[in-house]
Amino acid sequence: MNLIWLDGRLSEGIAANDRGLAYGDGLFETIRVSDGQPRLFERHLQRLAEGCRRLQIPCDMAGLRYEVQVFASTLGEGVCKLILTRGSGLRGYAPPQPCQPRRLLIGSAVPLYSADRARTGICLFPCITRLAEQPLLAGLKHLNRLEQVLARAEWQDSVHAEGLMRDTSGRIVEAVFSNIFLVRSGRLFTPELARCGVAGVMRAEIIERAREAKIPVDIRDISFSELLQADEVFLCNSQYGVWPVKAMQEHTWPVGPLTFELQGLLSDLMGIT
Amino acid sequence: MNLIWLDGRLSEGIAANDRGLAYGDGLFETIRVSDGQPRLFERHLQRLAEGCRRLQIPCDMAGLRYEVQVFASTLGEGVCKLILTRGSGLRGYAPPQPCQPRRLLIGSAVPLYSADRARTGICLFPCITRLAEQPLLAGLKHLNRLEQVLARAEWQDSVHAEGLMRDTSGRIVEAVFSNIFLVRSGRLFTPELARCGVAGVMRAEIIERAREAKIPVDIRDISFSELLQADEVFLCNSQYGVWPVKAMQEHTWPVGPLTFELQGLLSDLMGIT
Repeated sequence: MNLIWLDGRLSEGIAANDRGLAYGDGLFETIRVSDGQPRLFERHLQRLAEGCRRLQIPCDMAGLRYEVQVFASTLGEGVCKLILTRGSGLRGYAPPQPCQPRRLLIGSAVPLYSADRARTGICLFPCITRLAEQPLLAGLKHLNRLEQVLARAEWQDSVHAEGLMRDTSGRIVEAVFSNIFLVRSGRLFTPELARCGVAGVMRAEIIERAREAKIPVDIRDISFSELLQADEVFLCNSQYGVWPVKAMQEHTWPVGPLTFELQGLLSDLMGIT
Repeated sequence: MNLIWLDGRLSEGIAANDRGLAYGDGLFETIRVSDGQPRLFERHLQRLAEGCRRLQIPCDMAGLRYEVQVFASTLGEGVCKLILTRGSGLRGYAPPQPCQPRRLLIGSAVPLYSADRARTGICLFPCITRLAEQPLLAGLKHLNRLEQVLARAEWQDSVHAEGLMRDTSGRIVEAVFSNIFLVRSGRLFTPELARCGVAGVMRAEIIERAREAKIPVDIRDISFSELLQADEVFLCNSQYGVWPVKAMQEHTWPVGPLTFELQGLLSDLMGIT
């Protein structure tokens, strides 16, 4: 296994009674590390803090920030997966009072994706698994991810790089491990994520940089037919950046100029890959 | 900590890259052990097998059955929590092929509940947290339980023994760690659990024994107003058996004859507590 720190010390395992295992009672972040630096770090910490607030998990964010920085400089190049759980508990759902959250940092190599994906686009698999609508958990990167596991198990081929996920009402939400954007008449559109979905850090970065570049961004519900009618479609996450979507089954989209413009706007982040 | 076996050996921890922790990618059962015997064991194994089938987790059920029996005879008296995960994985949601599921058995003492709860009834807290509707996971006792954690955190007093959970459409589903039954005109009613909720082993046992005793049982959607209009209401789970519900805020229900009749029908299971 790779480099693992548990609460700041080298470790290989986690307590059997941890509530992260028992209930998925915790949060995670998958942070790209380059040149010993955690990338998009403020956004990762911000989302984690928001998750802690909503799940009422106490967290020393200053201590965690320092620990991830030291871990990243040890790792050098790769991916740092940070898992924060509510810690050990007795039997029963009631959160222990007081609770002692547990921090797990797992380092691994940068995933190898073909550069073609970013240039010529990817094929999207239309997942049958729908996302349940739970506003209390929407937007968070929490440890309850069985829907993503089921969705990702729907295809085994290497033709499809990602899978489209809709909510139980049929709206477009995201992809299994990415967020989704549409382009229409020079504007960007991305789902609101108020009922389900993960509010990705790269999504937030794209929204901000697009607006700085005077590209309008609308954050709202998106229907399946709007997806099909889009001029361009692309996916994003903090590891690979931006992938144009060229096809989903028989439907195709052009890999277009606004997607490439955004890749350009993010190139400082993606220089290494 | 208590008696813990990991894959049949004494252990205190689980691998940091286990998918049970990463994604809640697994199932659990909480089995009452008395006189060295796992109680309602066939029903627990049956639900676990159904979960494995639906989540596509391979499991040697015969080996697991034997292991739990040996664990139970070692434990003697108490509760055996069984966690079955898909095992370790690389980064990413795709289930590893092949996968090596991991079995965790955690023994603990029988929870101490006041006998008054079964005799004079309990007060139910009306949780604000709603259960999202996800048919693909409904009925299973999987490791994605953040909704229960949020619901259980809604009350800290000792007045309320349990909390009522409704789905996002407002239907009655269950309580936080129990199933729910209504009595109306001599018939039993319990929610169908096709969209959310855990199909409890005691619920299944009650349905079977009630029908054997010629008490009709309807399994269907139940509205909030039907709950309020019920002649009797009770909760059940495999640890405590049956608790009559006497009140939820200002609303009260009589602790009635059919609830006591069912407690009698289950007394062989509950003799020890």
